[in-house]
Amino acid sequence: MTTVPVSLTSDMIAAALHQLRQNAPKVHCVTNTVAQYFTANVVLAIGAVPSMTIAVDEVEGFATNADALLVNLGTLDDTRRVAIPKAMRAARDAGRPVVLDPVKVHRSKVRCEFAVGLLAEKPTLLRANEDELGALFPGGATFGDMADKDRTLAMSGRQDLIGDGQKCLRLDNGHPLLAQVTATGCAGGAVMAAFLTVEPDPVLAAAMGLSVFNIAGEIAAERARGPGSLVPELLDALYLLDADQLDGRLKLSDLQEGTGS
Amino acid sequence: MTTVPVSLTSDMIAAALHQLRQNAPKVHCVTNTVAQYFTANVVLAIGAVPSMTIAVDEVEGFATNADALLVNLGTLDDTRRVAIPKAMRAARDAGRPVVLDPVKVHRSKVRCEFAVGLLAEKPTLLRANEDELGALFPGGATFGDMADKDRTLAMSGRQDLIGDGQKCLRLDNGHPLLAQVTATGCAGGAVMAAFLTVEPDPVLAAAMGLSVFNIAGEIAAERARGPGSLVPELLDALYLLDADQLDGRLKLSDLQEGTGS
Amino acid sequence: MTTVPVSLTSDMIAAALHQLRQNAPKVHCVTNTVAQYFTANVVLAIGAVPSMTIAVDEVEGFATNADALLVNLGTLDDTRRVAIPKAMRAARDAGRPVVLDPVKVHRSKVRCEFAVGLLAEKPTLLRANEDELGALFPGGATFGDMADKDRTLAMSGRQDLIGDGQKCLRLDNGHPLLAQVTATGCAGGAVMAAFLTVEPDPVLAAAMGLSVFNIAGEIAAERARGPGSLVPELLDALYLLDADQLDGRLKLSDLQEGTGS
Repeated sequence: MTTVPVSLTSDMIAAALHQLRQNAPKVHCVTNTVAQYFTANVVLAIGAVPSMTIAVDEVEGFATNADALLVNLGTLDDTRRVAIPKAMRAARDAGRPVVLDPVKVHRSKVRCEFAVGLLAEKPTLLRANEDELGALFPGGATFGDMADKDRTLAMSGRQDLIGDGQKCLRLDNGHPLLAQVTATGCAGGAVMAAFLTVEPDPVLAAAMGLSVFNIAGEIAAERARGPGSLVPELLDALYLLDADQLDGRLKLSDLQEGTGS
Repeated sequence: MTTVPVSLTSDMIAAALHQLRQNAPKVHCVTNTVAQYFTANVVLAIGAVPSMTIAVDEVEGFATNADALLVNLGTLDDTRRVAIPKAMRAARDAGRPVVLDPVKVHRSKVRCEFAVGLLAEKPTLLRANEDELGALFPGGATFGDMADKDRTLAMSGRQDLIGDGQKCLRLDNGHPLLAQVTATGCAGGAVMAAFLTVEPDPVLAAAMGLSVFNIAGEIAAERARGPGSLVPELLDALYLLDADQLDGRLKLSDLQEGTGS
Repeated sequence: MTTVPVSLTSDMIAAALHQLRQNAPKVHCVTNTVAQYFTANVVLAIGAVPSMTIAVDEVEGFATNADALLVNLGTLDDTRRVAIPKAMRAARDAGRPVVLDPVKVHRSKVRCEFAVGLLAEKPTLLRANEDELGALFPGGATFGDMADKDRTLAMSGRQDLIGDGQKCLRLDNGHPLLAQVTATGCAGGAVMAAFLTVEPDPVLAAAMGLSVFNIAGEIAAERARGPGSLVPELLDALYLLDADQLDGRLKLSDLQEGTGS
């Protein structure tokens, strides 16, 4: 049951984006080989500084001296299997926020088991779609069951839900063309990691990151002819995004249940 | 000797493309690290769904629950050497079509030997250029020698030849600027794999895939200023390609030899 | 102390670029997973032919039958650690020029130690920024100390310095937006490697490559709306770059100290 009201305005998102651009936080991304290039460009476009190594000998150092960590389970090869727990522990020990994105766990039993093990490392934020959550939490668990105070959840889909068991937000921004480009979801996870460096509440940080990414996606899709031109347009829109655009487009709903609690 | 006439019209290609967009088949791509990002976007742009893992523990599962498999031998590291035969066998056991692209085997003896071994796995379609075929089949073998009923061959070049020993087609679509962009050939292999999910005859499926890719390439090259703008234009053109464009541009010749046989 | 005057004109750069486009030299790039795709497209855009494998069994063959080698230490996983010294030795034994780019060695002690070891392999050109050089040569070494006749140095930054202990050039071309796109520095290293195939003096070759890359970057940045559109514009600008553009934009200074020596 969500019982706590959430107040998140476009002005707050714009202020956090401004702060992010001022700080230029380092975001270390242990992500899949397909998404690395685009993710690095997305991280740069929002004003943060990416690093991407997955080398076992290096990953703890990079995770420690970065300001946030993204872990994405795509192309989960042997090196990544060893590097990921090391990176997550190093980041947690250094007090860094961690986003976990269990890409396509519904397509691979071995990957799903690996992901379940990582939940024990208590990532700050779990980002997944409905299929992936269904594989991680079998037995028809509801969003309320899966999100709790130790595990903020951002569920992507036609609408995005973000909650921590006490608060819950719904986002209605975005555009279908984003799904015709590879790694947009993966890169969105890196944006959420970047916002966790300027906003300590994971629900707010995730909502800020997703709003920024999806609103930039709307602007880009309106300018693009197809998925090819969407990519440069999206990076430009992220780079140029301003408070007026956020204010004019934000579609965020507080899903608080009950009253007066 | 090619003895069987082939009937392939732009309407048939348009119908197959429509079917492909309806079905949204899953195409698993074990491809090189340079081509992964662009290939995933090409697969999405034609309406299919890519997956790209090369992890040894995962690749059989992904190959089995996909609808077609692309194997590309670029950046042939140790993981790929183990994963590729596993993926090919899993796909064949599950009845999935397999496209093999022996990238740059003429530049590496060890890669060439590996590729020759893979021919024993009987890929549905072998896609290669003249240099690569020269390395795979030394001793001046002709196209007719190399293509047979167990091995449909798509030979790319200024003109593309597609044959299975009985039928042979020549395609004259495409644009030189496509060669100034990395991974266009690699991504073309994934398009052919996608068409194998809607057209069972490998000669027809390969010709459909190559025609779609090369005609989109022509449209894109006419709009592009150089190889940089070609990339978004090509993805947009693939996404927007319609029956009229196919009809107006298709250059396909049946190379049947002899008469009345 | 720099004592030898350097004469490098835009006409010489244009002539070398023309020669490069005529020759279409093969540049083998052992580079990081993030940069591979963009680097391959940059190499193609200037008229050279990239290959990118890092596989241990293949890398010596590719390095030997290429015309130049780029080694970039990003995403320095176990395979790269083994492949890189093999590639460097094979290239040197075959008389090929080698560019070493010790990406982010200031972020990883283990990577820095590896890079210091590679300096013993005597790369033709070391390309690095100030942070990276500070990690490689601790104790406040000056540019003059770090560059010597066995080690030409290209130090990137707001201004670029290129020297070999006897000659020194300063380049003032480029645009801040280039830093908002991933792998521009990495790809610039590949361009320098390509110019080493047409100009034997590493100082001149590095200055030619950097001028070409940075002037194309200026042209692209003036046409781009942000970092997204910069990528296609940059590749187009490299492909279309001509003598007039080089002549109108080149900002190159000879930093010769003293007179008459």
